[in-house]
Amino acid sequence: MNRRSFIQAGALAASATLLIAANAQTTVAATQKRHKIVIQVSDADPAKWNLALNNARNLQDDVGAAHVDVEIVAYGPGIGMLKFDAPVASRISDASKAGVKVLACENTMRGQKLTKDDMHAAVGYVPAGVTEIMKKQSEGWAYLRP
Amino acid sequence: MNRRSFIQAGALAASATLLIAANAQTTVAATQKRHKIVIQVSDADPAKWNLALNNARNLQDDVGAAHVDVEIVAYGPGIGMLKFDAPVASRISDASKAGVKVLACENTMRGQKLTKDDMHAAVGYVPAGVTEIMKKQSEGWAYLRP
Amino acid sequence: MNRRSFIQAGALAASATLLIAANAQTTVAATQKRHKIVIQVSDADPAKWNLALNNARNLQDDVGAAHVDVEIVAYGPGIGMLKFDAPVASRISDASKAGVKVLACENTMRGQKLTKDDMHAAVGYVPAGVTEIMKKQSEGWAYLRP
Repeated sequence: MNRRSFIQAGALAASATLLIAANAQTTVAATQKRHKIVIQVSDADPAKWNLALNNARNLQDDVGAAHVDVEIVAYGPGIGMLKFDAPVASRISDASKAGVKVLACENTMRGQKLTKDDMHAAVGYVPAGVTEIMKKQSEGWAYLRP
Repeated sequence: MNRRSFIQAGALAASATLLIAANAQTTVAATQKRHKIVIQVSDADPAKWNLALNNARNLQDDVGAAHVDVEIVAYGPGIGMLKFDAPVASRISDASKAGVKVLACENTMRGQKLTKDDMHAAVGYVPAGVTEIMKKQSEGWAYLRP
Repeated sequence: MNRRSFIQAGALAASATLLIAANAQTTVAATQKRHKIVIQVSDADPAKWNLALNNARNLQDDVGAAHVDVEIVAYGPGIGMLKFDAPVASRISDASKAGVKVLACENTMRGQKLTKDDMHAAVGYVPAGVTEIMKKQSEGWAYLRP
């Protein structure tokens, strides 16, 4: 063996070890990752809307609001939950202030002739609620349908 | 050190590096993977059947039918959705033509004395709907229950 | 190159290879992993309670009880399923004997002034049903809401 080959072998081994260490760190980070959950609301049922909001609050209370991302996605028959005059309107404000992301499906809004003026001011928007719910799960978010 | 030992060390380091590169490539492929979603229908409610079919179509419209695998699994009280004379029968045909896989639970069919003659011609079959839904999730599919 | 450097290079390469081998083994184990599924019950509807119990049994029948972990979590309006005098009480006993874990949400129990004396003897407890459902999914369990 010559000195140059030896150094190359050493460098390869060292870089392999560094990459493995980086990978191990990623695994540790994954274990310590924040909780993430997407809550689906697709029923025209104020009892379900309240249950979804209770669930969001209980999750924050139980693991600490700082340790969990909660996103509520309303679509289809559930869109009424996010109208400005919904029976849960004040609770939507509270949830939003508590850091819960509340999203309305623009597909559904178009179908029901709703504009942003009809919706709660704290609401955010996604083009399609079902796509949002699918994408979040593919990014590792848990799913809850109260 | 002798030449043979040195070559072994180099080979080990090189193969380690190759394996790590392969692993990195897998990660990239995972990021670029197709969307996949299994939609559960377990209610005897034609409004839910229509919502499930709307959801499937919206997903295809939103991300492009070529970029998402959509599978609808009907079981339990939801099996009626897939009978040949269901109120949504023509929509099942449309969904199937659009590439949505529509599956009936054979467990449920046995329990309700249904045969394949009772079912929509475009329907596929799984031994147990709940197992299908579980397995798809363990393979990384998102879950949706409209 | 000197002997000591060479030995270090060899040791690095060898440990890299061992770590990679360990990682590959984890991947194989993941592929062969048991099925795991958490079933949510959040409706005050005995038909849903029976459906959830049917689903648990069908899963065990279909893949073999030895190959699947099934956990039923009842919370919110679904908590009634796990009271000692629920219409499905004898089926809760059967499910528990068959290895299904049945869990009641203590948050819900507090809200409904229920104590463990009100509940089925085979029931286990979690501080918050929604957190349990979220955590199980983040550990790779499938989700089912009958």
